[in-house]
Amino acid sequence: MINKEQIAADYRLIQDEITAALELTDGKAKFKEELWEREGGGGGRTRIMQNGTIFERGGVNFSAVQGNLPESVKKAFKAEQDEFFATGVSIVIHPNHPMVPIIHMNIRYFEMPSTLGTDHEPVRWFGGGIDLTPHYILEDDARFFHAQLKSVCDEFNADFYKRFKPWADDYFFIKHRNETRGIGGIFYDRLTANNELSWETIFEFSKALGRSFIPTYTELVNRNRDKTFTEEQQLWQYQRRSRYAEFNLVYDAGTKFGLETNGRIESILMSLPPTAKWVYDFHAKPGSEEEKTLSLLKKGIDWV
Amino acid sequence: MINKEQIAADYRLIQDEITAALELTDGKAKFKEELWEREGGGGGRTRIMQNGTIFERGGVNFSAVQGNLPESVKKAFKAEQDEFFATGVSIVIHPNHPMVPIIHMNIRYFEMPSTLGTDHEPVRWFGGGIDLTPHYILEDDARFFHAQLKSVCDEFNADFYKRFKPWADDYFFIKHRNETRGIGGIFYDRLTANNELSWETIFEFSKALGRSFIPTYTELVNRNRDKTFTEEQQLWQYQRRSRYAEFNLVYDAGTKFGLETNGRIESILMSLPPTAKWVYDFHAKPGSEEEKTLSLLKKGIDWV
Repeated sequence: MINKEQIAADYRLIQDEITAALELTDGKAKFKEELWEREGGGGGRTRIMQNGTIFERGGVNFSAVQGNLPESVKKAFKAEQDEFFATGVSIVIHPNHPMVPIIHMNIRYFEMPSTLGTDHEPVRWFGGGIDLTPHYILEDDARFFHAQLKSVCDEFNADFYKRFKPWADDYFFIKHRNETRGIGGIFYDRLTANNELSWETIFEFSKALGRSFIPTYTELVNRNRDKTFTEEQQLWQYQRRSRYAEFNLVYDAGTKFGLETNGRIESILMSLPPTAKWVYDFHAKPGSEEEKTLSLLKKGIDWV
Repeated sequence: MINKEQIAADYRLIQDEITAALELTDGKAKFKEELWEREGGGGGRTRIMQNGTIFERGGVNFSAVQGNLPESVKKAFKAEQDEFFATGVSIVIHPNHPMVPIIHMNIRYFEMPSTLGTDHEPVRWFGGGIDLTPHYILEDDARFFHAQLKSVCDEFNADFYKRFKPWADDYFFIKHRNETRGIGGIFYDRLTANNELSWETIFEFSKALGRSFIPTYTELVNRNRDKTFTEEQQLWQYQRRSRYAEFNLVYDAGTKFGLETNGRIESILMSLPPTAKWVYDFHAKPGSEEEKTLSLLKKGIDWV
């Protein structure tokens, strides 16, 4: 049977693998590590890389925290229990280059003691997802990205991709802009075992997803890193980043959870962009690449 | 007796006065107006000035909207009624110059029909406030700003400043950073008439507050507009602006109300800065002006 120590240990290892590979891809910047402890229990390893050849800022966080749930979170989880344990790996990367996409990945596990007593199995679930936010949507790249995700999903369950892809469309949605954050990906939450799905399969799936991050993103970086770009395209990149900031501050559940459980602020908000621009009442030029990208920021596109 | 048409008409006039005066101060940029209508009833006049000699972006909005309250707002207001009317003037100005402060002002009126029937007085209240967000806090300017506000308050009620100043400290507070947005100002909400305070006095106070904006802010602009500044100081300005964006997207009630009542997005989010920078884990140099500013971003400072 899986246990929380094993999950945390494996997730920590995945953080190591990912940071090592990203340093290799960047070729210049190195991750700096911040070890932190949470008042109330547990802690984490925040690793940040800045001012690289490719990555303007990349954050790869591991955490394993425990303690008492704040009232607001208890209410949201409809939980009667106070205690909780949560572990996960969270990544957000903001590249320098407007043709290299922003990426986000998260795998996480959550556990609370059973209300029936300590001799019962705890209440537990897995969650996670990956989504891609190209400043300019390139259809070949979008197809590649979704094909990679589908292939990880299909390895574990024939229903995963078709359940988790629309879930990402709904989750990574900026309601007040009526646009998706990017081209989506997959998202799942409160995934629990049942007759057809074991805890082991869910756990292995989450690790496979974590380990698919590097081959998928490296390919997308390498396809685009040597393209030339204009100042205007960089400005567009900063505008798109402002939408990213809006999503994370207004809607993102992980950010809210972090802020409400008194997480380490700099680790939680490492997802925010180094530079963002808000341009009042922007309208893309008809027929431009910017207009095309905006037209593809919608739910329900079948990329595979 | 005051009525909502009169309030809206006077507030609209205050918008006119303020935009004319700001154009004069800037000397170069002119406001562009966007008239908009709200699906469901009413509309507004959004006026935006950009790329001025002083003001990188200034928004001065007037709106008078009506219609049905969305469920989430009804719940927040503990209202049984569906209909509402709201009018107000809202200002946010982001100057080019790091020594010129960001300013925000809002005056507003809200009304719902009485649950006792249309022959009864409606449920109504006034709200509003002004707060100042200097990128660098200059103590003389902070004292001047608060003295101006106190003098407007004192003209109408001896208790206003001492009630509304701490209210601003509490409202304009970035909880997850444990810092105030700036040096505060005054804030009030759901202000209603009682035995000692008439509706007319509250209404006149809100207009006096609106009309104090120009003399107060013009003085602060003129004190600082000709100072030289470094690139490092501009970077600091952009960092402070990222905190402004965090406050508005995470905490600001007016922004939330606007997003939830399907207001015009570009008018609501004109408060967001033209350029903002998030620097990971920034620490001000000991003894620096930046460090001094951070040390003054706290509640309860008595500036008068």
